[in-house]
Amino acid sequence: MNDRFLRAARKVPVDRTPVWFMRQAGRYDPEYHALKGRLSFKDIARLPEVAAEITALPVKKLGVDAAILYADIMTPVEGVGLSYDIVAGVGPVVERPIRSTEDVRALGAFDPAAVAGVFEAIRLVKRSLSVPLIGFAGGPFTLASYLIEGRPTRTYRETKRLMLRAPDVWTELMEALTAMTVRYLEAQLDAGADAVQLFDSWAGHLAPVDYERYALPYVRRIFQALAGRPAVKIYFPGVASGELLPLLRSLAIDVVGVDWRVPLAEANRRLDGRFALQGNYDPLWLEAPPDVRRAYARTVVDAGLQAPGFIFNLGHGLYPEAELEAVRDLVATVQEYSAERLAGRRVGEGSAAGGPPAVGGPSAGAGDGPERGEAR
Amino acid sequence: MNDRFLRAARKVPVDRTPVWFMRQAGRYDPEYHALKGRLSFKDIARLPEVAAEITALPVKKLGVDAAILYADIMTPVEGVGLSYDIVAGVGPVVERPIRSTEDVRALGAFDPAAVAGVFEAIRLVKRSLSVPLIGFAGGPFTLASYLIEGRPTRTYRETKRLMLRAPDVWTELMEALTAMTVRYLEAQLDAGADAVQLFDSWAGHLAPVDYERYALPYVRRIFQALAGRPAVKIYFPGVASGELLPLLRSLAIDVVGVDWRVPLAEANRRLDGRFALQGNYDPLWLEAPPDVRRAYARTVVDAGLQAPGFIFNLGHGLYPEAELEAVRDLVATVQEYSAERLAGRRVGEGSAAGGPPAVGGPSAGAGDGPERGEAR
Repeated sequence: MNDRFLRAARKVPVDRTPVWFMRQAGRYDPEYHALKGRLSFKDIARLPEVAAEITALPVKKLGVDAAILYADIMTPVEGVGLSYDIVAGVGPVVERPIRSTEDVRALGAFDPAAVAGVFEAIRLVKRSLSVPLIGFAGGPFTLASYLIEGRPTRTYRETKRLMLRAPDVWTELMEALTAMTVRYLEAQLDAGADAVQLFDSWAGHLAPVDYERYALPYVRRIFQALAGRPAVKIYFPGVASGELLPLLRSLAIDVVGVDWRVPLAEANRRLDGRFALQGNYDPLWLEAPPDVRRAYARTVVDAGLQAPGFIFNLGHGLYPEAELEAVRDLVATVQEYSAERLAGRRVGEGSAAGGPPAVGGPSAGAGDGPERGEAR
Repeated sequence: MNDRFLRAARKVPVDRTPVWFMRQAGRYDPEYHALKGRLSFKDIARLPEVAAEITALPVKKLGVDAAILYADIMTPVEGVGLSYDIVAGVGPVVERPIRSTEDVRALGAFDPAAVAGVFEAIRLVKRSLSVPLIGFAGGPFTLASYLIEGRPTRTYRETKRLMLRAPDVWTELMEALTAMTVRYLEAQLDAGADAVQLFDSWAGHLAPVDYERYALPYVRRIFQALAGRPAVKIYFPGVASGELLPLLRSLAIDVVGVDWRVPLAEANRRLDGRFALQGNYDPLWLEAPPDVRRAYARTVVDAGLQAPGFIFNLGHGLYPEAELEAVRDLVATVQEYSAERLAGRRVGEGSAAGGPPAVGGPSAGAGDGPERGEAR
């Protein structure tokens, strides 16, 4: 098995930087559309063969170093008896949003049997997978925002209102989601996932003072509950989350996912160098001409290799409009360039401090430049 | 005239912290709706009496320490011959988005006469205003994003595509918008504005490396062109812009507006203590119960008073759903609490380091606690 992803996450030397992408199995890929057909996320959660096949797709097609379970962050809420839909062009929609203590208390204890297809998909895909499998769940704040708003929002108004006006309801909801998430992730690990990522996509909408009080305690609890598991643990605090990084230092995790806005060197400083980093290529850099998008990739690799461990990813999920060829080329660029850097054969190309990546700049000769490319 | 706003912007001591709000003349106020009726932003740009009256409204109603011209950031594009609409529930819509060199070259030189109502509104409102008047324009990146996308976007995909794939078109467009903005702001200053703010609301979607190359040079040029003017200059880099702050150190400005995500002490560090700060109350904190929203206000004031100059504002614009009474109470809270702090009568209340503001915490007695409340 190609275990570079697990090694880099654990700060163990690797011969090249592992790569995977958030939403790597998705709408940018025609084969995904063919497999998915008219099935919804909810259908697929009941069709483990399809979920397993979609999960494995990007490993074959892109050559990524990890697979991630094909599911939605809303998937587990069916296990507590909540009904939702994923509406095309909108996103997750909850018909009866949670707004009161009664709404929270109507949630049942998490029943893994209600989403048994997810765990079966993990078992199926693990039979043939040549790379580690990442399981995942939504962060409690992010999940709460979907359940409270009832649909995607730009302002998180209802979520913040509930949080500030009804802190008791908020606490009870966050505790319920925390308990659900722990059981959901444990069941994924039991089924064979090698790592878990908590996607707190929208936590960056909170001021740090609010994140620390209303969201972080539950994130902490989830990872504490998994502390005895050997699996790699990744926390992605979402977009615009740079100011939250210093608050994450004491989490029981291996890897922090970084938004494209935060330079990786700065992220590493804010995290006190404690974790491997994962990120942080702007998904829209894939739209640039080949030379330019490769130069950005080299810059990200150069910065990432200064962290205690580094996994190449995007700063957010792949957009449906991404071109398959460009995505494939990005994987190859990262794998080749990082291999050369780590072997000490090529140093500094593309690391344009204080400016955008140089396009077609001179490639440093073998062995010259500072020896920063030690194996990680 | 109450000149606290200008003094604080210039780092001159004040007896209390000046307050104003982005979008303070707006949809949260029933009197605004009565004045505006069915008139559009474009209508009002041609009705200077109405624009002047709306501009003055929040000074009377809220007791804010500055007024800001009532106009839209799209207003000046009529002066270069571009046609747009502001569609209810959507935002600015440009029928023929800019995508090519031809589109850019079709823009005319800025003709102030096309938006003469704006300057007339400034002259009218200045006759009776008891506080400084802030003129404004959109930042070049933000304006470009509206013109390229054609309508508001969550991803800025078309904007980044043009920027990365057609850098010559991008440069030409940014230069045209820069020239337009300089002339538009100069005309506002000639008409009597005491300050100008550049709203670069969406610049925070760029990675710092892209901001530095594709947006900052034009921001710099705009403020350089105004350097000979005595007016106060404010740059607001928009939401999620914390990572851009270190790049702003060399701008010829007085004040930087700060998103609610960035603690003010951290913003001051990233800006090397060079500027007065303006911000950074989360507009949704207005939804909290009175005690809580006041405690947040005290925390922001406590942090702001550590900067070389401080103007209280929101981290983004007022939402239409804000309650007038809550907004009014926020102004009063800031004015009273900052006056007490600056007089050295009350120290430390609400400054809950490492946690959310304490509600109803003990008030320190006169003169005790460290003497941090020196007049600014």
